[in-house]
Amino acid sequence: MRSEPRVTVWNEYRHEHANPAVAAIYPRGIHEALAAPLRAVGLDVATATLDEPEHGLSTSRLAKTDVLVWWGHKAHGEVADEIVERVHARVLEGMGLVALHSAHFSKIFKKLMGTGCDLKWREAGERERLWVVDPTHPIVAGCPEVITLPQEEMYGEHFDIPPPDELFLLSWFQGGEVFRSGCTWRRGQGRIAYLRPGHETYPTYHDAEIQMLILNAVRWAAPVGAATPVRGNRAPLEPLGG
Amino acid sequence: MRSEPRVTVWNEYRHEHANPAVAAIYPRGIHEALAAPLRAVGLDVATATLDEPEHGLSTSRLAKTDVLVWWGHKAHGEVADEIVERVHARVLEGMGLVALHSAHFSKIFKKLMGTGCDLKWREAGERERLWVVDPTHPIVAGCPEVITLPQEEMYGEHFDIPPPDELFLLSWFQGGEVFRSGCTWRRGQGRIAYLRPGHETYPTYHDAEIQMLILNAVRWAAPVGAATPVRGNRAPLEPLGG
Amino acid sequence: MRSEPRVTVWNEYRHEHANPAVAAIYPRGIHEALAAPLRAVGLDVATATLDEPEHGLSTSRLAKTDVLVWWGHKAHGEVADEIVERVHARVLEGMGLVALHSAHFSKIFKKLMGTGCDLKWREAGERERLWVVDPTHPIVAGCPEVITLPQEEMYGEHFDIPPPDELFLLSWFQGGEVFRSGCTWRRGQGRIAYLRPGHETYPTYHDAEIQMLILNAVRWAAPVGAATPVRGNRAPLEPLGG
Amino acid sequence: MRSEPRVTVWNEYRHEHANPAVAAIYPRGIHEALAAPLRAVGLDVATATLDEPEHGLSTSRLAKTDVLVWWGHKAHGEVADEIVERVHARVLEGMGLVALHSAHFSKIFKKLMGTGCDLKWREAGERERLWVVDPTHPIVAGCPEVITLPQEEMYGEHFDIPPPDELFLLSWFQGGEVFRSGCTWRRGQGRIAYLRPGHETYPTYHDAEIQMLILNAVRWAAPVGAATPVRGNRAPLEPLGG
Repeated sequence: MRSEPRVTVWNEYRHEHANPAVAAIYPRGIHEALAAPLRAVGLDVATATLDEPEHGLSTSRLAKTDVLVWWGHKAHGEVADEIVERVHARVLEGMGLVALHSAHFSKIFKKLMGTGCDLKWREAGERERLWVVDPTHPIVAGCPEVITLPQEEMYGEHFDIPPPDELFLLSWFQGGEVFRSGCTWRRGQGRIAYLRPGHETYPTYHDAEIQMLILNAVRWAAPVGAATPVRGNRAPLEPLGG
Repeated sequence: MRSEPRVTVWNEYRHEHANPAVAAIYPRGIHEALAAPLRAVGLDVATATLDEPEHGLSTSRLAKTDVLVWWGHKAHGEVADEIVERVHARVLEGMGLVALHSAHFSKIFKKLMGTGCDLKWREAGERERLWVVDPTHPIVAGCPEVITLPQEEMYGEHFDIPPPDELFLLSWFQGGEVFRSGCTWRRGQGRIAYLRPGHETYPTYHDAEIQMLILNAVRWAAPVGAATPVRGNRAPLEPLGG
Repeated sequence: MRSEPRVTVWNEYRHEHANPAVAAIYPRGIHEALAAPLRAVGLDVATATLDEPEHGLSTSRLAKTDVLVWWGHKAHGEVADEIVERVHARVLEGMGLVALHSAHFSKIFKKLMGTGCDLKWREAGERERLWVVDPTHPIVAGCPEVITLPQEEMYGEHFDIPPPDELFLLSWFQGGEVFRSGCTWRRGQGRIAYLRPGHETYPTYHDAEIQMLILNAVRWAAPVGAATPVRGNRAPLEPLGG
Repeated sequence: MRSEPRVTVWNEYRHEHANPAVAAIYPRGIHEALAAPLRAVGLDVATATLDEPEHGLSTSRLAKTDVLVWWGHKAHGEVADEIVERVHARVLEGMGLVALHSAHFSKIFKKLMGTGCDLKWREAGERERLWVVDPTHPIVAGCPEVITLPQEEMYGEHFDIPPPDELFLLSWFQGGEVFRSGCTWRRGQGRIAYLRPGHETYPTYHDAEIQMLILNAVRWAAPVGAATPVRGNRAPLEPLGG
């Protein structure tokens, strides 16, 4: 069986300083709230934030990261293109990426998707119901068939993503919208999962079921250990004949 | 992390009695050749064969099976419909199925696919090259980017299967054909993998790389532990209003 | 450009006789309500119903059918297995199938899917919103991004189908559920579409947007004219060498 | 039925000037060889080449283009980023893209895929066999189950693309490799097809079956006419209650 992945949780870490309501919910930052339940089951988890040098994503940090968890919202544009290229290259090499909530609009997610990644949204504290639509998917292990969040930001379709390779959660919102909330894609040797919930003004990341989804997604996104493909000019394996 | 799945290896077990060349390659039967490398890494593996009562697939045996491995060829028609229904129901409940080689034409595989599952074939002992086309897939963990089998039966497209949910191996054959040789599908709560190699007159199941693919497929196909969906007439979760 | 497909609309045609409320909505039967808008744009449309000989699905009728539209509900069990086999074979040969609403539980749909095809349901006349989640799909041509039906039967997840090859509509229901309402699959040479709306006690098939979806689905499901694959024992195309 | 798409064929148009062998095969340029069979069936086809102002891809030209066909090879790096952004935006708006052969490494294809798009290759004039693996796909309409090209450049797996939404052609090469040669993806409202054959030193685009594939791909990639999704901050459609 595979050993546990080494994780880096990246957080923009701006709302927590700017908005006391967010700081009240996540006093040590969203990154620490995300890291704690992963550490509780024994995973090796580092954190990194936007205002650290290289946004905390040095080459050596990424080299030691099997799965990168990403939360960003209001400062996507401040992430340096050079770092985005570095993370992109690591995903293609096999590092997993778990993009959370507003990370749908991060540079790295958009670059991996090839689309605009826009959507409908509304901040009205309405009820969200996340329905499992693929009960064979490892990311919903241990979850009930519907997860109810009493208050969340609404995200609505059309979500401008490529058709997911796997779709395992669909959200229902009180105001009339639906959303593809649990999705996966593959890029190069890397495995990518998107999980919708987690607006900064709600205590979503303290919810045990959401924490389980994230833990499952981290394990799902870990490198599988396949051979790195060789590319370029190659001699024939078989005689070509006359 | 998940514990290891309990496995039952099913084999038709007729060629080994009828054909000395097959018996020479698989003296204890194909099922024992398949079971041995799984047991070697600690899995709990039972075997079952066509000529046992209920083909060895009693209700209690299936209840204790997390993943069923299936090899059959010349006697697909002798598998009782009642047993096929029982296995089908267990797959929909979550039991994994790993269908090998000529199991493409078994009743259970055809019933799960909904198609004819026919293909081109040729017994000429020609070379097969299995190329990894999805280096993110857990079933190719630890494998090289191409596996070469010096002699195998050819299977050629069009293989009459539903488009696979995941396609991770493509075969090249010396005589000019290609084949989708590593595929997965999901049915109900069950995970299904198909692996092409394994004609009875070649020692394919003694090949360490093929054994690794089968071990990986067994682990991949294990039940994930998602909630069993509730179906039928349901009351509203939200007030319907006036 | 392809010419228009020849269509047969199959209807169980029992509710219309048994329930005056249904007869009031569909006085000439659901099949005629489905056929009329297809004929209005020039398609050649026949109808067939359960109580006709061979359920109206003779070999010659099917041979002249490019796309079969199917509506059934309370008498799925009365459809003869022999006819189901005949329709199944024609789909694998290339006849398109458009399964509507409660056809999810028809023998032919279940046989093509390989799963149980069960779901949650509720008859409460609640509001349904169908959101387009794939704006590249031909079946949503000419449709708005959301179609609202004031009263429909609820269908809720988990819908026990194989992951669709294409998913283009998701439903939101007032009572809190979601549903994959517009899906396609491929089986053999046949193209299959499922469209959820259309409970017999609501005038859904008189809705112009739903009629457009059905017309689009019929055109989408038409045979494409690819070569019929050859299968079985085949000689090599290339010399196998020594 | 849909009317025919307006097409622009883009060609790098450098090999034809630099290499007499290429000029002998394509005396008027690869773009004219691609355009001719499309025009022969009545399509409105413009051409554009790298060395024209804005590479021939002005805003007004793209606004009049329903499907863009792309051939490039040795000068991918000379395509201006600004033009790549413009084409990308038009694809997300609904313009189809048919990428041919070495266009796998073009900036626009890589940007839409989100991956490296690299592969194995060999110029040895070896035989290629393209097998249809999806006989339900419109792009293979009218084609035989296998297309044989006597001499082509080899492209081999692993091809670093996202798993295709649809895979309809697999190539076999004499030297031992396989390749996913006919693929589609969806990005935004745009439909994208990739067709492998077409090395500049072989007369592949004079082959009637390859011309048919390209015509089919152009028709397949045409905009479907779905509603343009609205995104951003949205008011609820349903009352949110208390």
